[in-house]
Amino acid sequence: MTLTIHPLTEIPEVSPGDDLADLLLASLAASDLELGDGDIVVITHKIVSKAEGAVVSLDGDDEDTAYRRIVLEQSVEVLRRRGDLVIARTSHGFICANAGVDRSNAAPGTAVLLPQDPDRSAHGIRMALEAATGVSIAVVISDTFGRPFRRGVVDIAIGLAGLEPLLDLKGTTDASGRMLAATEIALVDEIAAAADLVMGKADAVPAALVRGLTMTPGEGRATDLVRPASEDLFR
Amino acid sequence: MTLTIHPLTEIPEVSPGDDLADLLLASLAASDLELGDGDIVVITHKIVSKAEGAVVSLDGDDEDTAYRRIVLEQSVEVLRRRGDLVIARTSHGFICANAGVDRSNAAPGTAVLLPQDPDRSAHGIRMALEAATGVSIAVVISDTFGRPFRRGVVDIAIGLAGLEPLLDLKGTTDASGRMLAATEIALVDEIAAAADLVMGKADAVPAALVRGLTMTPGEGRATDLVRPASEDLFR
Repeated sequence: MTLTIHPLTEIPEVSPGDDLADLLLASLAASDLELGDGDIVVITHKIVSKAEGAVVSLDGDDEDTAYRRIVLEQSVEVLRRRGDLVIARTSHGFICANAGVDRSNAAPGTAVLLPQDPDRSAHGIRMALEAATGVSIAVVISDTFGRPFRRGVVDIAIGLAGLEPLLDLKGTTDASGRMLAATEIALVDEIAAAADLVMGKADAVPAALVRGLTMTPGEGRATDLVRPASEDLFR
Repeated sequence: MTLTIHPLTEIPEVSPGDDLADLLLASLAASDLELGDGDIVVITHKIVSKAEGAVVSLDGDDEDTAYRRIVLEQSVEVLRRRGDLVIARTSHGFICANAGVDRSNAAPGTAVLLPQDPDRSAHGIRMALEAATGVSIAVVISDTFGRPFRRGVVDIAIGLAGLEPLLDLKGTTDASGRMLAATEIALVDEIAAAADLVMGKADAVPAALVRGLTMTPGEGRATDLVRPASEDLFR
């Protein structure tokens, strides 16, 4: 089945208290799109954080010093450090640059934090979109992460509602009949990466509609994607 | 612009010497698809390796022992080891499980290696497809990699032709006018991940057509995505 990914444009700058479901529905309508069963709405966390007021001011001392202090406040554990770059574990368990605190696409003098509970944020947006439309959908909240070993950043899922994040192929057979070993595909990370292809960092397209994916509905959490430290060969 | 991703189905089991461009064109025709300028054809490396004969027999001693021996032969450096799992650097520079040697979707008693030079493989397929159709396209060869910190595997690019793997946003500004710091998006890894959403591991869909992406044509190499050890905080 063919997959389509529509950018959701014309979403205005988001302020604390804004209703993201309303903004998404207006954007869909502006593009003559209507939500259907099985659709997946991918939203960059930046507008979720802004709507939830997860934005901090960098005043007081100079902005760079304030930024570094906030990064450490948001870090449960610092794994690596080089110059101004900190790779840290957040309260959610995510391991990422600068504990997810970001000054790009933030108002001058401010930094945007990760949502406090991105799975709960995704759940709330999903409930509001489903109540408004009567269809059954999934919501994914994405962020941009670097990776060991490979250059460049990719979008991954930090929050989700309405689907299972991992597709477990254990017990299924490959095309030649061989039983597949424990292979779990990080489906929701691939969805976030796919959505980023129509978003772009500089273009202010903060959401996308992914349509046509045969997904397993479920009530998984993005934190299911965090590899336990005991299983991780690189901590 | 809307992105569409079509699975390329009805590709038969591939044998050494098969012409992948021919098989891809037949698959496209069977789906009433015609290649157009700017299209990206994503191909799982498994069929590239098979066409190139990068398949080894596991006979001699028992199959598991033979497999472990071949994994070590394909490893330039072993970074981590746990039980039967080896995380190794390959001759290409990729860091992955079992040096990319794979027994799934391989004939019984065999294992499939990575192509010797996946960028060259992509280039050859691109040239053949362009010669047959007269349009200008890109080709990406994908493989399935695990990741530190996160559960589940995702598809990434191990070979490419006709596009730049990294989209460099340095010097551009965000929606609020702030200059973006050195942000390189691993565009081609996101393309590989997106294509995997229509492939599936068990369904024998070894290729996909990605259409509608505004990409930067170029002559980059997938090995450009390998982070130099000196810049890598996790080696």
